Amino acid sequence: MDARPEKQERWDRRMETPLAVASLLFLAGYTVRVLAHGMDQVWLDLCLAVTLGAWGVFIADYLVRLGLSGLGPLRFVRSHVLDTIVLVLPLLRPLQMVKIYEQIQRRHDKPRLTLYARVMAYSSLTVALLGFAGALAVYQHERGASGATIRTFGDALWWAAETLTTVGYGDVTPVTTIGRLIAVGMMACGVALIGAVTGSFSSWLIQTFTREDEKRPPGGTPGAS
Amino acid sequence: MDARPEKQERWDRRMETPLAVASLLFLAGYTVRVLAHGMDQVWLDLCLAVTLGAWGVFIADYLVRLGLSGLGPLRFVRSHVLDTIVLVLPLLRPLQMVKIYEQIQRRHDKPRLTLYARVMAYSSLTVALLGFAGALAVYQHERGASGATIRTFGDALWWAAETLTTVGYGDVTPVTTIGRLIAVGMMACGVALIGAVTGSFSSWLIQTFTREDEKRPPGGTPGAS
Amino acid sequence: MDARPEKQERWDRRMETPLAVASLLFLAGYTVRVLAHGMDQVWLDLCLAVTLGAWGVFIADYLVRLGLSGLGPLRFVRSHVLDTIVLVLPLLRPLQMVKIYEQIQRRHDKPRLTLYARVMAYSSLTVALLGFAGALAVYQHERGASGATIRTFGDALWWAAETLTTVGYGDVTPVTTIGRLIAVGMMACGVALIGAVTGSFSSWLIQTFTREDEKRPPGGTPGAS
Amino acid sequence: MDARPEKQERWDRRMETPLAVASLLFLAGYTVRVLAHGMDQVWLDLCLAVTLGAWGVFIADYLVRLGLSGLGPLRFVRSHVLDTIVLVLPLLRPLQMVKIYEQIQRRHDKPRLTLYARVMAYSSLTVALLGFAGALAVYQHERGASGATIRTFGDALWWAAETLTTVGYGDVTPVTTIGRLIAVGMMACGVALIGAVTGSFSSWLIQTFTREDEKRPPGGTPGAS
Repeated sequence: MDARPEKQERWDRRMETPLAVASLLFLAGYTVRVLAHGMDQVWLDLCLAVTLGAWGVFIADYLVRLGLSGLGPLRFVRSHVLDTIVLVLPLLRPLQMVKIYEQIQRRHDKPRLTLYARVMAYSSLTVALLGFAGALAVYQHERGASGATIRTFGDALWWAAETLTTVGYGDVTPVTTIGRLIAVGMMACGVALIGAVTGSFSSWLIQTFTREDEKRPPGGTPGAS
Repeated sequence: MDARPEKQERWDRRMETPLAVASLLFLAGYTVRVLAHGMDQVWLDLCLAVTLGAWGVFIADYLVRLGLSGLGPLRFVRSHVLDTIVLVLPLLRPLQMVKIYEQIQRRHDKPRLTLYARVMAYSSLTVALLGFAGALAVYQHERGASGATIRTFGDALWWAAETLTTVGYGDVTPVTTIGRLIAVGMMACGVALIGAVTGSFSSWLIQTFTREDEKRPPGGTPGAS
Repeated sequence: MDARPEKQERWDRRMETPLAVASLLFLAGYTVRVLAHGMDQVWLDLCLAVTLGAWGVFIADYLVRLGLSGLGPLRFVRSHVLDTIVLVLPLLRPLQMVKIYEQIQRRHDKPRLTLYARVMAYSSLTVALLGFAGALAVYQHERGASGATIRTFGDALWWAAETLTTVGYGDVTPVTTIGRLIAVGMMACGVALIGAVTGSFSSWLIQTFTREDEKRPPGGTPGAS
Repeated sequence: MDARPEKQERWDRRMETPLAVASLLFLAGYTVRVLAHGMDQVWLDLCLAVTLGAWGVFIADYLVRLGLSGLGPLRFVRSHVLDTIVLVLPLLRPLQMVKIYEQIQRRHDKPRLTLYARVMAYSSLTVALLGFAGALAVYQHERGASGATIRTFGDALWWAAETLTTVGYGDVTPVTTIGRLIAVGMMACGVALIGAVTGSFSSWLIQTFTREDEKRPPGGTPGAS
């Protein structure tokens, strides 16, 4: 599809480690800034700098890949929707870790997981990271609100878990407008990803039972059932 | 299936723009009437007139298509179930926008979305519009009720989001009979549409992972995994 | 599978109308007995008699069919699981109406619904009847309990709707042990049936979109997309 | 895959009854210890001893099978993920009963359940046992907490039912950190298993309706519809 795939591949490979490090730094910087708000101002500024620096790395990488692709900006955005979303909402950045982990695994020729297991692993990891990032963001906006029920980061994590699984006890809920907007986003993503997890798990379970049927006859005709 | 398809097609094409405009006017008129209830009486009457006028356009279009089809009223209703529901509950009208958007896109021969993406786009848009219209209708009936927890339109939207995703915190819930009837309708539709979104997303994700498998071997046999 | 199918079929056909009438009488008798508890004792006794009489008809029909089948009681129970459940919990009886409706429709050779539509219709009707019967049963046990939040039959219906769709606001919940046991049964059935509804709806939507693709090209090759 | 399958099979067969007994003793011991906390100290110690003894049997069986497999510990863990989880969290132990029940049934050549029925039976039983064990564990950690809403074991069971079906009324919810951690684990497992139940039920219902179509024509061409 692209005219210059070789250069792109070289760039992708060279950026793997820097991007992974930047992703971890971004999440760590944001986490510290939100959770340790009683900390010294110097450290908070450092966290902010680390977070923004990591974001800068993401933007630079995106622009270089845009240039290497030889496509116009609009067409590049259209064919890299997820990359663009992740650029704008870097809290979702760690999702890229899955991709990098897979690339490393492929190069070492290790046995890869089955299709359903990969869908489940990918969806579960996405849900977990989404939940963590969403809990952070909601906690940041709720903790100072009057009448808030989300008062500790533990409450925020508990709220994220019951939201993403659609259990929704309602013992802790966001009350601010921004908190509720983040919550709606989490519900939308969460519902879709939970659907992917349950769909894959269901298919995997049926597949497993089918295989057991085929393996079962000790000296008979395999697959006869 | 129909004897006079040419005339019908011409009618459909001619009505596209008027119907789209009427749909927008209906929703806008209803929205303003519900939300701006402290407004001058003249403007409220104007909104009501716009809303009813748009409804009249829908009824006229329905009757013309009934006449062009050459079918009896009962058979026409049976073969146009969605059109009839939308005629009676015009708050669901904007759903037709999807159809119109597709017709325009088809005529321009643009590349269309894949099957799953279209199901997801259609279902998500329907859910969003259903949520907005339901929030409006519930807000209209709840805001004056004693003991109501849905007191602002923001509350109503928040309630619609947690209802359609079946999260259901219960921090805001309808207390009037009409509000609860609308809520039951939203739950029924919402559950079905959310099922369609998650089902399509799950299938799409599995398809995507399968394709990645096929693309993956750099110099090997494609599709061997 | 059975040795005497002809006699059985004749019995099934002869019992159609009596069973349908008995089902309606059972539900009506139970409903009146629960809802009109301030009524004259004579009428309440009549309702009880009607309810028990209808139950007697069900038992008699079950025993006759057991005899006609030529199977032992245990094997008959094993091959008629649903019939046995419905005999023990006659509140689920009206479900059989679907079967009878289908038998009548088949004999008249009317065009039947498609597969997915029938699954959806069957599941939705079952959910609706299950919800109504469950709301009745829960209301009967909750209305006198101290600290109950389900105080009117409207509350019970509202509770049934939010339970079966797994929304679960929690504004009204059963507090008695029997009420909670009925609720757990409703959750278990409800979750399975809602899964059937959403699964069928999702499949139907995908099928509809696929057909539209095939119909679409005006003068081109059908099915090419 | 393994070099010494014969010895392993003999071991598996010999351990069936001891493992089943140990599983029951473990669950019984734990249940009594949690529920009968006002009992004499001697009996509580006995329960603890029974529980730990049963756990010892599980560990011994795991080690013997590790030895018989001829694999290294890491590879054995990787190919026996479920066995390892069950070793660490023996509250999930009774799940193995399904396996044993199937092995017994297979040896006696009884007609086995269909694929979907087995998936449903397995998932439902797992959900029920998971709910019971989770309710026990949560009750143990919540009953002494200040501000707890889960005060009786009945409350804990009710909470487990509304959590696993994702209804989540929120009338009773865990408030301690450990209770919430168990709850998150239950949500994750519950959502996946409920997905398997609904997926299988939906597939089974569609299959049943399809078969009815094929059986229906009394003297016509089967499968023609």
